[in-house]
Amino acid sequence: MIGGSIGLALKEKSPDTEIRVWARREAALSGITAAGFATMASTSLDAVLRGAKLVVLCTPVEVMPDLAALLLPPLDSDALVTDAGSVKQVVLDAMVPVLKHQFIGAHPIAGSDRAGIEAARADLYEGATCVVTPTSDSPRSAVERVTAFWKFLGCRVIEMSAAEHDARLAFTSHLPHVAAAALAMTVDRSAPDWTDFVGGGFRDSTRIAASNPDLWTGILLANETSVTRSIAEMQEILQEFRVAVESRDANTLRRLFAEARTSRNRLNSDLDGI
Amino acid sequence: MIGGSIGLALKEKSPDTEIRVWARREAALSGITAAGFATMASTSLDAVLRGAKLVVLCTPVEVMPDLAALLLPPLDSDALVTDAGSVKQVVLDAMVPVLKHQFIGAHPIAGSDRAGIEAARADLYEGATCVVTPTSDSPRSAVERVTAFWKFLGCRVIEMSAAEHDARLAFTSHLPHVAAAALAMTVDRSAPDWTDFVGGGFRDSTRIAASNPDLWTGILLANETSVTRSIAEMQEILQEFRVAVESRDANTLRRLFAEARTSRNRLNSDLDGI
Repeated sequence: MIGGSIGLALKEKSPDTEIRVWARREAALSGITAAGFATMASTSLDAVLRGAKLVVLCTPVEVMPDLAALLLPPLDSDALVTDAGSVKQVVLDAMVPVLKHQFIGAHPIAGSDRAGIEAARADLYEGATCVVTPTSDSPRSAVERVTAFWKFLGCRVIEMSAAEHDARLAFTSHLPHVAAAALAMTVDRSAPDWTDFVGGGFRDSTRIAASNPDLWTGILLANETSVTRSIAEMQEILQEFRVAVESRDANTLRRLFAEARTSRNRLNSDLDGI
Repeated sequence: MIGGSIGLALKEKSPDTEIRVWARREAALSGITAAGFATMASTSLDAVLRGAKLVVLCTPVEVMPDLAALLLPPLDSDALVTDAGSVKQVVLDAMVPVLKHQFIGAHPIAGSDRAGIEAARADLYEGATCVVTPTSDSPRSAVERVTAFWKFLGCRVIEMSAAEHDARLAFTSHLPHVAAAALAMTVDRSAPDWTDFVGGGFRDSTRIAASNPDLWTGILLANETSVTRSIAEMQEILQEFRVAVESRDANTLRRLFAEARTSRNRLNSDLDGI
């Protein structure tokens, strides 16, 4: 979905650009070809990379370290590599020692619980935030070329360090996946036949609990410290609710729910950051 | 929204039925009249209730005890009273001693984070589950009349005790509201200016955190024991995730996320209960 959406958007915005797609498995090639954006699709890294100007890695983050060494030989010396991984420090740690100044990490914050080329959409990145995470050594010209690429797809680009990106996304993205999963499990463990008693609230709140288990295991383990902290903070806030309910403290409960409403509305405002 | 949607649905399905609306505040009457379904709208309980065949209470649950005594004098002896409250035991405890066999509690599981007559929709109850909660003394004829009313609005009706209803809804509805609120607060307390870093996952997972604080304070305190238990169970499951992340236990994390996906898909299946 992530890579396919980039292909569809590129094809729409720049029909003459040559778009080559690499896939690990032969079985994936027919779906990619059917999506209609690829000039060529192949399981040969060499065939896809030779002469490429910009390479975008859209694999799960735990696969990227193995890819780094495989990219280097076929890559042109003036080519740049970026990625769409949900965590950035582990990706930089794997890529930068091998690819040096040719790698500029990125994370377009867009997606859903769906996966696969069939879920790709040409407008996935339209209006999305893309965080670009250069190192202090990254050449400005390389940062600017990668930034221009993500902007061309429709993203608003924000630049920050990989560490800062990971600390923030632990709260805004990784924790929500843990919370949705824990909520779905709590209800289902209490009784698995309560389908008739869930409403729209449960449905929306647990949508991302249907996400890919392998993908999210990789993301959480690549951002262990911040994710652990975010889970601990949510447990503490749940404890505030629990104590207020147990002690029948209406004032505290009202204050907690009012804070939650303010928080939710602030974080979902369509205005630019405050 | 709850009462207005009943009015709109009734008007659509049975245009000749007389629909009278009572509101506590004079200021609410113009909105009700503008919605177009009411034969009359008034702040006089007496004027609205006299000669009524079926009365549907759509107030917050904490208001219902005060209403019970006010309903009795004007009510016809063959009239029935039902309600749309999100908890049932406290409502029955307040209503049945006063209204006796004339009260049959109900909870149509439908709604959203929105409120007020402007959010009313004629199709809100179409396909929704409505739990009807008679006591062991309730006359079958009364239960059947109230059941027929909710079915007429489009609901699938399930009958169970008020206590059983409350124990289930603590998990399927009340806990999701606490979880959404806690998640929004956790992210916002960590840094209130992270609007650019939230994606669709956070947005969906926290939609119901924007719900009315007074309403949900009332609901939680009216279902204290079961809500406390549901929060405790979610805290424990969050702890399973936290330990797995901290100890870098990929197998356990993968198993937890896989369980969550199964749970989510089972509880949101459109098939009838398993």
